[in-house]
Amino acid sequence: MIENNIGKRNVLWIMADQLRFDYLSCYGHPSLHTPNLDALAAKGVRFDRAYVQSPFCGPSRASYYTGRYCRSHGATWNGFPLRVGEPTLGDHMREIGVRCALVGKTHMMPDLEGMNRLGIDPDSEVGQRHAECGFEPYERDDGLHPYGFDEARPSYDDYLRRNGFDSANPWEEWANSGIDKYGNVRSGWFLKYSDLAARVPAKHSETAYITGRAIDFMQAAESSRPNQPWLMHLSYIKPHWPYIVSPPYHEMYGPEDVLPAVRSNAERQTDHPLFRAYQNSRICQAFASEEARQKVIPAYMGLVKQLDDQLGRLLAWMEDQGLMDNTMIVFSSDHGDYLGDHWMGEKDLFHEPSLRTPLIIYDPRSAADITRGQNSDELVEAIDLLPTFQSFFGGPAKPQLFEGLALDPLLHDTADGWRDVAFAEYDIATRPARLELGTPLDKSGMVTAIDKRWKYTWFRDFRPVLFDLENDPRELIDLGADPAYEKVRQHFDAAILEWATRPHGRTTMTHEQLNRMAGKEPTGILIGLWDEDDYERVFGRSYDRRPGLPRRAEV
Amino acid sequence: MIENNIGKRNVLWIMADQLRFDYLSCYGHPSLHTPNLDALAAKGVRFDRAYVQSPFCGPSRASYYTGRYCRSHGATWNGFPLRVGEPTLGDHMREIGVRCALVGKTHMMPDLEGMNRLGIDPDSEVGQRHAECGFEPYERDDGLHPYGFDEARPSYDDYLRRNGFDSANPWEEWANSGIDKYGNVRSGWFLKYSDLAARVPAKHSETAYITGRAIDFMQAAESSRPNQPWLMHLSYIKPHWPYIVSPPYHEMYGPEDVLPAVRSNAERQTDHPLFRAYQNSRICQAFASEEARQKVIPAYMGLVKQLDDQLGRLLAWMEDQGLMDNTMIVFSSDHGDYLGDHWMGEKDLFHEPSLRTPLIIYDPRSAADITRGQNSDELVEAIDLLPTFQSFFGGPAKPQLFEGLALDPLLHDTADGWRDVAFAEYDIATRPARLELGTPLDKSGMVTAIDKRWKYTWFRDFRPVLFDLENDPRELIDLGADPAYEKVRQHFDAAILEWATRPHGRTTMTHEQLNRMAGKEPTGILIGLWDEDDYERVFGRSYDRRPGLPRRAEV
Repeated sequence: MIENNIGKRNVLWIMADQLRFDYLSCYGHPSLHTPNLDALAAKGVRFDRAYVQSPFCGPSRASYYTGRYCRSHGATWNGFPLRVGEPTLGDHMREIGVRCALVGKTHMMPDLEGMNRLGIDPDSEVGQRHAECGFEPYERDDGLHPYGFDEARPSYDDYLRRNGFDSANPWEEWANSGIDKYGNVRSGWFLKYSDLAARVPAKHSETAYITGRAIDFMQAAESSRPNQPWLMHLSYIKPHWPYIVSPPYHEMYGPEDVLPAVRSNAERQTDHPLFRAYQNSRICQAFASEEARQKVIPAYMGLVKQLDDQLGRLLAWMEDQGLMDNTMIVFSSDHGDYLGDHWMGEKDLFHEPSLRTPLIIYDPRSAADITRGQNSDELVEAIDLLPTFQSFFGGPAKPQLFEGLALDPLLHDTADGWRDVAFAEYDIATRPARLELGTPLDKSGMVTAIDKRWKYTWFRDFRPVLFDLENDPRELIDLGADPAYEKVRQHFDAAILEWATRPHGRTTMTHEQLNRMAGKEPTGILIGLWDEDDYERVFGRSYDRRPGLPRRAEV
Repeated sequence: MIENNIGKRNVLWIMADQLRFDYLSCYGHPSLHTPNLDALAAKGVRFDRAYVQSPFCGPSRASYYTGRYCRSHGATWNGFPLRVGEPTLGDHMREIGVRCALVGKTHMMPDLEGMNRLGIDPDSEVGQRHAECGFEPYERDDGLHPYGFDEARPSYDDYLRRNGFDSANPWEEWANSGIDKYGNVRSGWFLKYSDLAARVPAKHSETAYITGRAIDFMQAAESSRPNQPWLMHLSYIKPHWPYIVSPPYHEMYGPEDVLPAVRSNAERQTDHPLFRAYQNSRICQAFASEEARQKVIPAYMGLVKQLDDQLGRLLAWMEDQGLMDNTMIVFSSDHGDYLGDHWMGEKDLFHEPSLRTPLIIYDPRSAADITRGQNSDELVEAIDLLPTFQSFFGGPAKPQLFEGLALDPLLHDTADGWRDVAFAEYDIATRPARLELGTPLDKSGMVTAIDKRWKYTWFRDFRPVLFDLENDPRELIDLGADPAYEKVRQHFDAAILEWATRPHGRTTMTHEQLNRMAGKEPTGILIGLWDEDDYERVFGRSYDRRPGLPRRAEV
């Protein structure tokens, strides 16, 4: 354990993709055993109420990487460019001398139009850095590489070919396909084939490959620049679809491990237009079917189990290298997966399986000894990570930019109060439901406010949705239109108003600058003074008509 | 008059500084005759309910120049850098081939830190353009040049010296000073000397000089590039303080022209902490005094009268050149001046003298013939100008960026409904009142919502303020704490919530792009499909495992 504020330190920030909060044994899953993540939780703090800022990859990640709510960074859906100039984790780390590397996925889309307006060549160092969301792309792999998808091919393709999995697209044809009992190659995209074994052995799976690359990075970083602190963002694609996994994980779990779906017939009768439109969509109907759940969920569990095994390998290696002594380790996810709960598939909406994620933080500082193995039920947001890293490395707090809170008080049990409400947003601008409902583009947003008891979602175009998490933790009873809860809704309208009007745009002035300016009139500008005597009375010195020459005289 | 959509066209956008809405004769001032602006109004539309987005120079102008509310552009007070990458009027005009020049003030502060992060040299073309808020700085003069004030010296200094007004600082010592009856040079900064004649004759005043430079620009633009449309932002410093004016304007108006202050004793007893703190401040107390009003207001009127005369000269020249036929002319102001109303000086708060400004638009298109000489009482915002210009020049609408409305429907009498509520903001982060009240920096904002009947100001740290503009047009009765108006306040809380959560950050995606994406799944990504038959059922063609090779194969 390192003493507070002493020595070279690192951060390993792991992110899973589409991993819901309750599919680890330390979070209570009854048959999915994840001993390595459980062991990490035993050394750190397990956050039981961690929420992402948006239930979709792109906007959620943009919030993680900028430390800002979606309404501030503006990249509110997948593929929306993060505007050039918006500072990211990598920029903040670079500023304080921390090497900030990426191994895996970011979902970053560069703002080519903005770069063009500013004369920034996309191939220049600055342009490349923006395209990589500020990270040093040690190994970038956004994780989805089917035929025809207009994304860069991953190095993983080459790796597979080198290992004998030859194809124009080994990602699609080997790593994400299986062989059925008749010997046919079947695509892992189809839910029916989720119980087949992926065509690559576990050691050559994407999860294993990326884990190896993470070890490569740490090895290289420690040997080439042993004194430079680093932050590695190890960002897995799994357990995100395609839901197909290598042996033996494909047969570790079966229908008997599939928990009953959390859903009610009342939900089917909802009068909420958006929730109804989603339930009726093809994708949600597919995932709501019990047949699909029986196929998908065991594969999903296998993918999580494999991730846990690979993290075991990684953490053992770090232990061996002594890196556990000075490295903060964070395990997180970008959003959840409904898996048929609430008659929904995928994510998109506001229920716990979609917005709530696992978050485990191991802090090597001795100040964290007091909380090891504990859990916290405080409301924690994804945007809290950036200020936590900034604080861990001793960088400036930057409240003009960071909208989250450094988690140190929770990690060191020194919190004197914490946030009362967490917020998440979603934008259905590009979703089929918007077209179906005729929602205009300026009304496609929703805001979810969550406190210790309630979850309230406010829409621009529909009535709100309200759940009493204390009496209805499974979120089956929507109180959004119940007259008895008018006061609760008003309370949350006020909370969202308070949140929405926080000064999120005032990013070019530090609080120190604002405080220095406060109350001071600039030199030479005299307002509301009657005459020279008044000047003397106010400023305590006599008025000098020519106190000095212009400072930046161009004459 | 030009036909709609035909021919080369220009925009002359005039801005006065600190000119309140009611100090022109066409807006009803009884003794301040402004025949030239009245004549412009007779040819165009006079907007009677035009509001700026902030009652202070810097943030108001940043809204005018970006077409965005303060919460979006973030430059919420004077001297706060506009973040690099935020597109401005100049960027939008350049994109569609319009030359966009500045003659006068912008109050723009460049974002040096942001430029540094993006590797943009402040001396490069892009860096210079950013520092000039996107304008071609034909003549930049931010208008305040006392000794010791750390701003670039204006060319006006040189001009004065060339004309015999020799000094290290002719702006301060000649243009903004007077001689008292004892022969002493007295500074125009002091209110007591506002009735003295400025030491330069009217023809060498800053207002006359800047007007001449505007004519120079038009002459040069028309002769060097006769086919290129242009937009000139002619941005005067006056009638902003120092309140001192050249002869004969200094003696055109006297105490008999000073209208009674709009204020009540009840206002003095307000329990609203912020309004009280302002009233008690030195600056407001100075301007609330009748003695100061008698000195300042005649000078203010003289400055406005001089501005009108100079605009008469400019407009006559344009008429002579035939430029009235194809040039849209807009007369506006960046905010008002309390001049002692409501016991206030300067601006800062939410009353009409501070937030409401004159707005006159002469549209040369034949479609505007139907409204010439009319007035409009629709709620118009400063951010409406940018989309109006964009539309006039035939550029794209850009709803992802522009938060205002093109005024064409009001100018052409084709409006089918209009906005119900206008919004303004203010940030007291740097104000003495914040320090006095102990308001934290994240609670220093306020939002004013105005409809045809009410004006409501919501604060993050205080109770709201509410005026019934129909029954109390002078805003003397604050209903913000009156229980009888709870429903009105709730209505406006909802309106501000609606406003605050508008998608103001989603700037990198056009609505066309969003609509194209809506409902489409990217190629190769298959979600929620059971098997190949399901694929065929959904997509109407048989599933092809290898539809094509990767588009951007790097293998």
